[in-house]
Amino acid sequence: MQDGTREEIMRATYRALCEHGYADVTMQAIADESGKSTAALHYHYDTKRELLLAFLDFLAESFVERLDDADEGSPTERLVSVIEATLSTPDDDPEFGTIVLETKARAPYDDGFRDHQLRIDDHLHARFRSIVEDGIDEGTFDPAVDPDETAQFLTTLVGGCHTRQVATGRDLGPVRRQLHDYVRTTLLADDRSAEAEVLTG
Amino acid sequence: MQDGTREEIMRATYRALCEHGYADVTMQAIADESGKSTAALHYHYDTKRELLLAFLDFLAESFVERLDDADEGSPTERLVSVIEATLSTPDDDPEFGTIVLETKARAPYDDGFRDHQLRIDDHLHARFRSIVEDGIDEGTFDPAVDPDETAQFLTTLVGGCHTRQVATGRDLGPVRRQLHDYVRTTLLADDRSAEAEVLTG
Repeated sequence: MQDGTREEIMRATYRALCEHGYADVTMQAIADESGKSTAALHYHYDTKRELLLAFLDFLAESFVERLDDADEGSPTERLVSVIEATLSTPDDDPEFGTIVLETKARAPYDDGFRDHQLRIDDHLHARFRSIVEDGIDEGTFDPAVDPDETAQFLTTLVGGCHTRQVATGRDLGPVRRQLHDYVRTTLLADDRSAEAEVLTG
Repeated sequence: MQDGTREEIMRATYRALCEHGYADVTMQAIADESGKSTAALHYHYDTKRELLLAFLDFLAESFVERLDDADEGSPTERLVSVIEATLSTPDDDPEFGTIVLETKARAPYDDGFRDHQLRIDDHLHARFRSIVEDGIDEGTFDPAVDPDETAQFLTTLVGGCHTRQVATGRDLGPVRRQLHDYVRTTLLADDRSAEAEVLTG
């Protein structure tokens, strides 16, 4: 399939999901959004499930690109800016967070969705761990910090921000400030409080 | 409606949700589980949506009871044990977490589900805030700690644990240890490290 065709089908899938929700979306609804026939869709994707799993890969690619763009500067800057990238909603995808939460809720019922969640979780965890390791190596972060567990904590926390934002619509400002506080008090080495300038509050 | 009838319908709803998932459950499936007719169900609940919202209230009641049972001892003990209660799966409700995540994903589409999420969020936040306030009052927790923001952070974090457990099935042990670390380094007053005995790690 040509890149342009894939992109068109993925954008149509996104619009159809926004309109119908994950549970009610149909191949017909996606076909209507794309201006293609359902037969044309089925030529590329045997089933709705296969198309939706391809759509998750498409979302994951753009998520990883946003993380790559954010992952620059000192370890403290990288940490703050990667966290921010995980919490932000892409300008042109206001329903992104809702769709992602629906696919998380689907994971216990379907190994394809579960595998996808595990890959995203691994990616985020590895990225946080590498930032924490770099910070320890260059003396910014406390060497007593456990990079693996810290990365698990941060992965869990940004997932919690996402769920709470979708489920309640609440402002995450106070949670962001506490998260920066956590970085300051738990991760930063004692003599590196100058790094704290990057952190709010 | 008599309490026994309500309990029976709620337990049948739970079993039907476990079997069919939130998106696919029907009044007929719930009727089949309860041994009642769909007409009998409709006598008590006009629509499937109304029954499911009543079911959420039922789940919330048992959740609040579990939190009440856990909320005992010193502020540090209360904090650790309430956190644990939010993370534990009730023995007789192994699918509890999955069903709750599905209803969170439903919130952006339906004000009834959104209102429910806001009530649970408020309850958890108020409980954490009151524990932190009590800890500050009796000198266990650092008076510089902001009870409201800390409670928001904890509410978000336990929600993140729940989502990650359902979506990935990963063990939360390392996150629990980091959470105890957070309580130790961020909340405990400097001269109250003896309290840290309650905390793991």
